[in-house]
Amino acid sequence: MIPDALSQGQYDTVYNFLSLVIASQLFTALFLLISLPRLLPRYRNAITVAIIVCGIAAYHYFRIFDSFKAAFVTKSVGGTGTYVQAVGASFNEGYRYVDWFLTVPLLLVELVAVLALTRKLQRSLLIRLVPAAALMIALGYPGQISTDNGTRGLFGILSTIPFLYILFVLFTQLSKSLDKQPASVRKTLGNLRFLLLLSWGVYPIAYLLPLLNISGANAWVGEQVGYSIADIVAKAVYGLIIFSVARMKSHEDDAEFAAIEGSKEEARV
Amino acid sequence: MIPDALSQGQYDTVYNFLSLVIASQLFTALFLLISLPRLLPRYRNAITVAIIVCGIAAYHYFRIFDSFKAAFVTKSVGGTGTYVQAVGASFNEGYRYVDWFLTVPLLLVELVAVLALTRKLQRSLLIRLVPAAALMIALGYPGQISTDNGTRGLFGILSTIPFLYILFVLFTQLSKSLDKQPASVRKTLGNLRFLLLLSWGVYPIAYLLPLLNISGANAWVGEQVGYSIADIVAKAVYGLIIFSVARMKSHEDDAEFAAIEGSKEEARV
Repeated sequence: MIPDALSQGQYDTVYNFLSLVIASQLFTALFLLISLPRLLPRYRNAITVAIIVCGIAAYHYFRIFDSFKAAFVTKSVGGTGTYVQAVGASFNEGYRYVDWFLTVPLLLVELVAVLALTRKLQRSLLIRLVPAAALMIALGYPGQISTDNGTRGLFGILSTIPFLYILFVLFTQLSKSLDKQPASVRKTLGNLRFLLLLSWGVYPIAYLLPLLNISGANAWVGEQVGYSIADIVAKAVYGLIIFSVARMKSHEDDAEFAAIEGSKEEARV
Repeated sequence: MIPDALSQGQYDTVYNFLSLVIASQLFTALFLLISLPRLLPRYRNAITVAIIVCGIAAYHYFRIFDSFKAAFVTKSVGGTGTYVQAVGASFNEGYRYVDWFLTVPLLLVELVAVLALTRKLQRSLLIRLVPAAALMIALGYPGQISTDNGTRGLFGILSTIPFLYILFVLFTQLSKSLDKQPASVRKTLGNLRFLLLLSWGVYPIAYLLPLLNISGANAWVGEQVGYSIADIVAKAVYGLIIFSVARMKSHEDDAEFAAIEGSKEEARV
């Protein structure tokens, strides 16, 4: 629930974080788009998906930004700026769910695509991960919009089931595929799963805040900042790590490509 | 703090400078984007980062511009145009910090990337410079938004520590790498550090103005103009110099490329 009033500092904090997310996603997408030819063709699909993910996130943050601006009106109280909830306006938290519904399955597609597995292996991983990710988000939504703690708790538990299944697949099935990756990227890819676990862990925490009776303006601002940082890490930072994996693999796969793309010192070796 | 009122001339000056920054960043980014194929692949990453830096700066100046326009309303006083602070509105200085938080680390990435060092050497420089740059900006922010001079002074000092560390790395560690650069670009790269030092020096000066009890409309206009010029030099001009270094190095590395890209006279040599 959005608070009735925000101080100037609280308002600016949310404002700046939402803007930071837009800039991060937009310019990560642009960087990846320009850098696409610097990868071997077999890794370009993973990065194309990363560009799309950041693009979708930027789009939804533009909407969230507008919704936030419309939800509060300025009101000068005793010389200092204060923002109060606009009459009849509400902050549309649903945009986040639409965003996640599209991007979270794609984040898993990115990860599988950069492995450049055989078509059969890739399909077997995606057929488990993608529907589970979509289900996870879809089941969270009824809880998010509910004002009833029982409903929120119930859907929280339901959406945890596909989340645990995704973790199971990532840490068991995917591990077998990681063994076939070049040594240089194996560790990065292994760690990427923890980045995913860590950043995805922020969402249920924010989700559970009302259940813990934590509310008020500060809690709400904290929630928005938390979601913003999590979205930057889970999409933009994650995409850049996938890109660096794709670069390393491109160089490993093709020495001639590495000589052209790498530094002169390295090319001479 | 923004002043209560601006004259028509003061208002127009800020307006025009903010617009000048947008034009400079946007079209430097466009120029670099179009010119990217005129570099050898190994130098394209540096320029891609330069494009991203100018793009991020343009984005934030659009926001600063909007915030400025919203902060003042026109009010005719005695026949001459005057602008007074809009009720409850504030000028969001935070955008500058969001911008710098993203771009300042990237400016150092640009510089290291154009050197085209071995992966190991590059990593060792970036692991020092990038976190220090992010820390420098993050520590400046609490001081900037504080109205208390003690807090402002404290965070000013704290943020100077990573700044000095960056200078130390640039003028000692980096010097060793410069020795391996071709003679033609060694001087330009050396001077680039002074450009960086000079343009970055503007920020602490503007930051310290309130500590020196310099305030009022003229001081505020001067601060905005100073930031604008510093941002143009530190990002757009800096990016163009990095580009010319990348061009020179591309020609040095590959005579055939130089013959195609250079003038007809040069190609005959």
